[in-house]
Amino acid sequence: MCPVILESAPLSRLCIHTITTKPWSIEEAATRYASAGVQGITVWRDALNGRNIALTGRMLRETGLSVVSLCRGGFFASPEKEKRRLAIDDNRKAIEEAFLLGAPLIVLVCGADPGQSLDESRKQIKDGIAELIPEAEAAKVKLAIEPLHPMYADSRSAINTLTQANDLAEALQSPQVGVAVDVYHLWWDPRLEEEIDRCGRNNNLLAFHVCDWKTPTVDLLNDRGLMGEGCIPLKTIRSWVEKAGFGGFIEVEIFSLEYWKMDQWEFLKRIVSTYEKFV
Amino acid sequence: MCPVILESAPLSRLCIHTITTKPWSIEEAATRYASAGVQGITVWRDALNGRNIALTGRMLRETGLSVVSLCRGGFFASPEKEKRRLAIDDNRKAIEEAFLLGAPLIVLVCGADPGQSLDESRKQIKDGIAELIPEAEAAKVKLAIEPLHPMYADSRSAINTLTQANDLAEALQSPQVGVAVDVYHLWWDPRLEEEIDRCGRNNNLLAFHVCDWKTPTVDLLNDRGLMGEGCIPLKTIRSWVEKAGFGGFIEVEIFSLEYWKMDQWEFLKRIVSTYEKFV
Repeated sequence: MCPVILESAPLSRLCIHTITTKPWSIEEAATRYASAGVQGITVWRDALNGRNIALTGRMLRETGLSVVSLCRGGFFASPEKEKRRLAIDDNRKAIEEAFLLGAPLIVLVCGADPGQSLDESRKQIKDGIAELIPEAEAAKVKLAIEPLHPMYADSRSAINTLTQANDLAEALQSPQVGVAVDVYHLWWDPRLEEEIDRCGRNNNLLAFHVCDWKTPTVDLLNDRGLMGEGCIPLKTIRSWVEKAGFGGFIEVEIFSLEYWKMDQWEFLKRIVSTYEKFV
Repeated sequence: MCPVILESAPLSRLCIHTITTKPWSIEEAATRYASAGVQGITVWRDALNGRNIALTGRMLRETGLSVVSLCRGGFFASPEKEKRRLAIDDNRKAIEEAFLLGAPLIVLVCGADPGQSLDESRKQIKDGIAELIPEAEAAKVKLAIEPLHPMYADSRSAINTLTQANDLAEALQSPQVGVAVDVYHLWWDPRLEEEIDRCGRNNNLLAFHVCDWKTPTVDLLNDRGLMGEGCIPLKTIRSWVEKAGFGGFIEVEIFSLEYWKMDQWEFLKRIVSTYEKFV
């Protein structure tokens, strides 16, 4: 890999996940993002609790934001048939929510269960997504398989590399299904460049998420870093994603006990400045 | 993957890493392991501090233990040439220690540095190991590349899959160099079965480490589980390792703040019983 000198990513492509600024309501997040010049928002479903979803979608657009995606569907894997059925129902609900909100995409955290083999979970994930395709098609909502870091293979996702996600998306053979590339989950993989290229060539690259990996990382879930404070080669990976034909929003998704404690407006300003400098 | 019904692993193949019972001195560990019927010991270098190494090796053998390996060499990666040089020197010292101790193998945690690219670290690792081969040969000590879980790619190892470790061991083309397979690092990998087979076919399978992955895992370093309390398919992976021709010791390597707090004799009895039941 050669060092890559790139222009910074333009502010117009910055999208923020509502979970990133978790202490804010979606209304406050929308106003603040827009004030900071952010133009995209990815909505976590918990942020919609108690809201009229269609009106919330309209509010977001009127604030000047594009609704980039809805997070998250998935969790298809379980040794219990009834739980798998409930997961499908919940994903149907997510498709409906995305439709009402006006989100063109749902990110799938596919699921895993420590009580069964990864192979079994992987089969159930494939079956689960396949079952949703007709409704996703009717709602004009795409489904993005997000491979998760192998440290989440026990209980969050049995899809742990971009190779697997590409295999799965291609096997499902539907224009409705693609892949979300998140640097936090994938940066370590020696196959990353070629699998990003493959993902783009097959028109499966639907989303691009950024943050950073801190040294040390002290919590498996909620210690993600701001761009530039870790070791992920963000500009290099962005260059691969763009070379693969992706020109959509660049989504900042940070779970951090540390940053959630900060003044969120100060945090938002740091998101914008580190995005402009390091992505 | 089919469910595999296997006989339990025999007690005669159980080896324990001194770090597993960290509160014990190597002398106490040796006596206790032998009392419990354990026949193999892998020595962590810190356990040798202040000892005459050759005499310690003799003590271990007189207690009835086989010295399986010395942990650990490696840490070849650094942006600073001087640090890389110091790492090589330290690995030379480890080879001498293994020779004096009578350990036929050194496990390599290859290193990574968040201040440089993984590609750069990978090159330095290859160069570092290559430089050590003549001395390892002279001392009749083998070097086992241990791929580490991707969650350690920032600062502990840029070798994160068995595919990479196999590629590297094969590229180095030396009977002195092989691979250590640790279920904790590798269990999630969809390529695991075929890469274990490849490792064995190329005579590179030098060591097999076990423990378990707990749900939830609350610490990235020191929350490994006892066999059977997590989701790693130990019997299945053991069957792959044995099918690949490996018949050596099965090494229990557990880092755990929780278990280090326990009475270590009670812990040792649990290691033996969970080994007999779940491995």
